Amino acid sequence: MTNPLRLGIAGLGTVGVGIVRIVQKHAELLERRAGRPVVITAVSARSKTKNRDVDLSNYAWEDDPVHLARRDDIDVFIEVMGGSEGPAKDATEAAIAAGHDVVSANKALLAIHGQALAEQAEAAGCVIRFEAAVAGGIPVVKALTEGLAGNEITRIMGVMNGSCNYILTRMENDGMTYEEVFDAANQLGYLEADPELDVGGIDAGHKLALLASIAFGTQVNFDAVVLEGIGAVTIEDIHQAADMGYKIKLLGVAQMTGRGLEQRMTPCLVPDTSPLGQLQGGTNMVVLEGDSVEQIVLRGAGAGMGPTASAVMGDVMDIARGARMTTFGQPATTLRKVRAATGAVPAPYYLRLQLLDKPGALAKVARVLGDAGISIDRMRQYDHSETAAPVLIVTHKTTKTALDEAIAAFGSTSVVSGKPVAIRIEAV
Amino acid sequence: MTNPLRLGIAGLGTVGVGIVRIVQKHAELLERRAGRPVVITAVSARSKTKNRDVDLSNYAWEDDPVHLARRDDIDVFIEVMGGSEGPAKDATEAAIAAGHDVVSANKALLAIHGQALAEQAEAAGCVIRFEAAVAGGIPVVKALTEGLAGNEITRIMGVMNGSCNYILTRMENDGMTYEEVFDAANQLGYLEADPELDVGGIDAGHKLALLASIAFGTQVNFDAVVLEGIGAVTIEDIHQAADMGYKIKLLGVAQMTGRGLEQRMTPCLVPDTSPLGQLQGGTNMVVLEGDSVEQIVLRGAGAGMGPTASAVMGDVMDIARGARMTTFGQPATTLRKVRAATGAVPAPYYLRLQLLDKPGALAKVARVLGDAGISIDRMRQYDHSETAAPVLIVTHKTTKTALDEAIAAFGSTSVVSGKPVAIRIEAV
Repeated sequence: MTNPLRLGIAGLGTVGVGIVRIVQKHAELLERRAGRPVVITAVSARSKTKNRDVDLSNYAWEDDPVHLARRDDIDVFIEVMGGSEGPAKDATEAAIAAGHDVVSANKALLAIHGQALAEQAEAAGCVIRFEAAVAGGIPVVKALTEGLAGNEITRIMGVMNGSCNYILTRMENDGMTYEEVFDAANQLGYLEADPELDVGGIDAGHKLALLASIAFGTQVNFDAVVLEGIGAVTIEDIHQAADMGYKIKLLGVAQMTGRGLEQRMTPCLVPDTSPLGQLQGGTNMVVLEGDSVEQIVLRGAGAGMGPTASAVMGDVMDIARGARMTTFGQPATTLRKVRAATGAVPAPYYLRLQLLDKPGALAKVARVLGDAGISIDRMRQYDHSETAAPVLIVTHKTTKTALDEAIAAFGSTSVVSGKPVAIRIEAV
Repeated sequence: MTNPLRLGIAGLGTVGVGIVRIVQKHAELLERRAGRPVVITAVSARSKTKNRDVDLSNYAWEDDPVHLARRDDIDVFIEVMGGSEGPAKDATEAAIAAGHDVVSANKALLAIHGQALAEQAEAAGCVIRFEAAVAGGIPVVKALTEGLAGNEITRIMGVMNGSCNYILTRMENDGMTYEEVFDAANQLGYLEADPELDVGGIDAGHKLALLASIAFGTQVNFDAVVLEGIGAVTIEDIHQAADMGYKIKLLGVAQMTGRGLEQRMTPCLVPDTSPLGQLQGGTNMVVLEGDSVEQIVLRGAGAGMGPTASAVMGDVMDIARGARMTTFGQPATTLRKVRAATGAVPAPYYLRLQLLDKPGALAKVARVLGDAGISIDRMRQYDHSETAAPVLIVTHKTTKTALDEAIAAFGSTSVVSGKPVAIRIEAV
């Protein structure tokens, strides 16, 4: 294969420009590695006149990404526009219909329409690759789909939204409240136009759903991801968790259980000495566990021009070299539709409550937990401030259901002030 | 492609048996993912009668791996015997001559004969894959060759010998001497039959040379790796380094410099808060740096039945799926022969010396360093015991040559007792 691989790029934001730069800067390197030239034929974006500080004069221009997708002078349609509906979806479908391979950075599109798109692509003999959609520059889709292909995957975990991890670590390191860091991050442009995509866990949930599909051979099912953002995490919990030897992370976890597929993207406590616990700032980390490989940890930049463009180019180079993977690691028609697990597998929980200064108060709390079948691993009571004392409890393994029962029962004890906080402790 | 992919396995030690187990246990999973069955046709090992706790009755047996390699009922020859010469080399060459693909866990063979074997294989239209040869279950060859294919690689680093990291962390955690931990590790079977392969850095040096070839498009050149084992690392240096905020690791570093390709496998100091610094026990870690991806860190089990077999099966699955990569990421005939860099790029150094209790002693040491053009970043002098006081110095960036000059000049000051210790501090 010495004929060039011809790219059409839809979207010339940060990532699109990053791809153009790599193709221009490393033309010789890419050709040497792929055994054929990799060239850009045509591009598309909203504004033709915007200054992007990159020379686009040799590429055909399309105002409409659907027209770009249908061009017969491209081999690979690169979709770096974003959005789960509208032009991104239309253009991706048009590219497949035209027999083009697709490389996408669009986690929302694939998390919601991935099954249908994969079936369309595979029926048409096209590939869809989406390394850039998950954890930026970390080649985690490749590691999971290809490197670990001999494993039954037992669990995947990850900190996959850099903005959330930036907020949580800055709260801890600088003693700022959630609101303060949120505003600072927003002003720095670290958050999506709709910040809820970040702090609500939606963006990270899309990524988790994509990895879960590959890991467990199931149809991607974003709707089944239990989502809980970081908006309710307080500086107090961050400090108290640290005091008990934990960090709070927005942690994605997916595992197959006897009750169905469990997918969660929620704040969790992890030991501060673990790789996940030590992760600071905007960096991403994904943990893959398989029956043979044991545990693999992958760490890197989760966003940004260079890392995301690097991931897109990894997929492009696979196609240039003739490697043609199925979208989710096995034919899309063989992916199973599984039910979502109701409730998470049992785990220890961190419990923080305000205990009123009454005789026998702690005994009452302990009795409520005991009645709910929850045993206590560690407990700390702090100095009373005014009338209430903060009490921290680390439970042994229990279900969220039992914990919710106990928390409800605290109300009738008259010794607990306010709403207790319960955060899962994930064994990593 | 629904015809089965037929494997011939040469070597039925831990790894070979691990492969057999995966193929037997996950037959359905492998077929679903690869789109075709993956089966074992024939095996070879030294002893046919040894009990390996696995059913081999359905496979043809060959006493001679060369005969196995030549069989016309295998598609992939899996070499998990080891050794850079003799049967492993003969059988690998025979497999290529017979037109078979090769999956190898043999770092020594490939680090020494990789260029010739890659040229033979590519001329014959065969692939050689060797994920299992580097860092056990971590899919680092894949990440580097494929995932980061759009990057100019700027540096690779790694802790790639679990036994050495086990020894160093146990020395620190348990306060044991090198000799004590070495003996314990040897008794537990953690070390190679020739322990120098581990503690001398040879095994890790093989791995580094293989990664460097892919990273920089150069012919694999193990002879050019600067090797220094961990035999001279003392418990005192481990503790003093910890006191200054560092850990000592047997660290591989490869980077292209203006003076040629630098490849080192030597004890280095790394910050104790870095991922490399936090690595405990037998785990491996590889750090890949590229101009777009920035930094990727990969962590996992570097040895053992499951992880190594997982890596072999990743390569097998690539072949089953029709992905046919060149051995070192570009055609072997295009790999450049580059000269080895003389001396490492400048770095800060940790320097420990015994200062005699004489007036003006510290000033003399400082003057020698200054005369050699070395400036001091941090210095600590400890209590005198008897007549000599330990002095720790962290220098600013300097060359090893300048440092060696200074160390030689310490001799004429009459204030330094014994031989000073100098260990490079790698910026990670």
